Amino acid sequence: MTTSTPSVLISEVGPRDGLQSVSRTMATGDKKRWISALHAAGLREIEVASFVPASLLPQMADAAEIVQYALTLPGLTVMALVPNLRGAQSAIAAGVHKLTIPVSASAAHSLANVRKSREQMLAEVRNIVALRNEIAPHVHIEANMSTAFGCTIQGEVAEDDVVRLAAECVAAGVDESGLSDTTGMANPAQVRRLFDKVRAAIGDRTGAAHMHNTRGLGLANCLAAYDVGVRTFDSSLGGLGGCPYAPGASGNVVTEDLVFMFEAMGVSTGVDLEKLIAARAPLKAGLPGEPVYGMTPEAGLPKGWNHSVRAEPFDKLRTGPVEALRQAQGERS
Amino acid sequence: MTTSTPSVLISEVGPRDGLQSVSRTMATGDKKRWISALHAAGLREIEVASFVPASLLPQMADAAEIVQYALTLPGLTVMALVPNLRGAQSAIAAGVHKLTIPVSASAAHSLANVRKSREQMLAEVRNIVALRNEIAPHVHIEANMSTAFGCTIQGEVAEDDVVRLAAECVAAGVDESGLSDTTGMANPAQVRRLFDKVRAAIGDRTGAAHMHNTRGLGLANCLAAYDVGVRTFDSSLGGLGGCPYAPGASGNVVTEDLVFMFEAMGVSTGVDLEKLIAARAPLKAGLPGEPVYGMTPEAGLPKGWNHSVRAEPFDKLRTGPVEALRQAQGERS
Repeated sequence: MTTSTPSVLISEVGPRDGLQSVSRTMATGDKKRWISALHAAGLREIEVASFVPASLLPQMADAAEIVQYALTLPGLTVMALVPNLRGAQSAIAAGVHKLTIPVSASAAHSLANVRKSREQMLAEVRNIVALRNEIAPHVHIEANMSTAFGCTIQGEVAEDDVVRLAAECVAAGVDESGLSDTTGMANPAQVRRLFDKVRAAIGDRTGAAHMHNTRGLGLANCLAAYDVGVRTFDSSLGGLGGCPYAPGASGNVVTEDLVFMFEAMGVSTGVDLEKLIAARAPLKAGLPGEPVYGMTPEAGLPKGWNHSVRAEPFDKLRTGPVEALRQAQGERS
Repeated sequence: MTTSTPSVLISEVGPRDGLQSVSRTMATGDKKRWISALHAAGLREIEVASFVPASLLPQMADAAEIVQYALTLPGLTVMALVPNLRGAQSAIAAGVHKLTIPVSASAAHSLANVRKSREQMLAEVRNIVALRNEIAPHVHIEANMSTAFGCTIQGEVAEDDVVRLAAECVAAGVDESGLSDTTGMANPAQVRRLFDKVRAAIGDRTGAAHMHNTRGLGLANCLAAYDVGVRTFDSSLGGLGGCPYAPGASGNVVTEDLVFMFEAMGVSTGVDLEKLIAARAPLKAGLPGEPVYGMTPEAGLPKGWNHSVRAEPFDKLRTGPVEALRQAQGERS
């Protein structure tokens, strides 16, 4: 395996986004074994838990213990979701490297999801940033615009609302604002347009693409985001987090298929695909009978597959074709 | 529904590619009902049969009757696959508008699939063209480069071989040469690169993208092909034609998901998505118990979905973003 810096960062969200969508609770020891296997496959950012009341999400009751375990894995960025200041206090106390805060772009979804208006949620973001600045300035904060591409409650979400909210989060002091297709409504043209607008507003503070595969467009939307310069992608091993093939389900992008796409393209992920597929075993062992998806693991790697041969140097890959053409255009004009 | 010319042509291959992959034979009356429903949904090119000996493919024994029925559907381009001169004679006698000839880019696959070397297959293409020119000059001929993106027998397929073969088919007199990911090994970077090379060699004779979803990249590969100017896409209703979720299966791109992607992007297909989803019923009725796939039909159309509102005029959509940027670049430089 190459030791050069990967071209894209695959941010694995299964242990948080996946596990909290499953009604059963994975045992703490099983979570540790699964996270270890993900780390062993080369994943270097994992959302390991969310800090919410155990009465609401018993699946996450062991969040602090899981964070402390994940901190022992070398080179891993340990991330946790926090919906409010209280969660941020607990997550920082547990020692996380990175906080992710969900901020709904849809007014209706914001009220339904966190019982706060968007303005109230922005105030919460400011409180979390103030806390971080005071007691843990090294901790990285990401805000992720939920329902950025459409809302199952209110329908269309105005693109200007998304861009403004992402910019307001940056103004509030977060390190990056990403976009999430919470509802599986995004399409590639919209992904390119909206990430372009967000980048025009906040530049390098533009964060991850969190795409869902609800209608089968997950990888196409990731490709579209890559084309306009996005370099961090959220996904979930086995597509855990809402069955991707059930009516109305959320359906996270499957990490195995996403890594296969990028590696096949010659875009280095730093992830060993065979070890990644092996990391399905501890997931299945920890949640027996739970459906685990993924086309690449089912079909197997293609004949002649050779990860190391396909990897190209980082500098060739920092820009996608659309972005590269734009740059060439800019250089010429 | 808009009556303007669609921006892309969805070429439905289920009644041929799909049905010949299923061991059971759909009854002739059921095939007619299914093809009618596909036509009613707005599909304007359907590969309805292959002309091969009934002893080899009993599923296609009624090919002539199916072609004659399909010819009664207004505005439909009736296409059939022919592997050799004899098949072409029968297909032309039945009255097809368009022939599609599979030509393996992989030497090993060519021998395995049609028991001919690539050179021998090219000779067959020349014979078919001569026949067409003599007795049915109005019939359109498409050659499709099988295993263009990799081969399960020989592994890698040299891109120069693919480009040369596509050009030789055009030199032999076919109207278009397309590329087929027979084995589900294509990735978006390769799709863009190879279609670019083929277009550089044969220009507007560049034909359809026939992508498979074996490893989940079907739609991403279609998007990549669209980005570099491809405007005809083969797909199969319900993904019929090799279970897309089984080891080693071929897995055609699901027409419903492909149409959803393009229509959501504002790229007109001329297909009514609700009627297309309704066309699953006669397929299921004709092959009870056969697995029928598709994420969009499972999840349903998103809230606020409005096909006609999303359609944009044809002239805005003739070029994908990469192509449009290239043109802009060309105009400026």
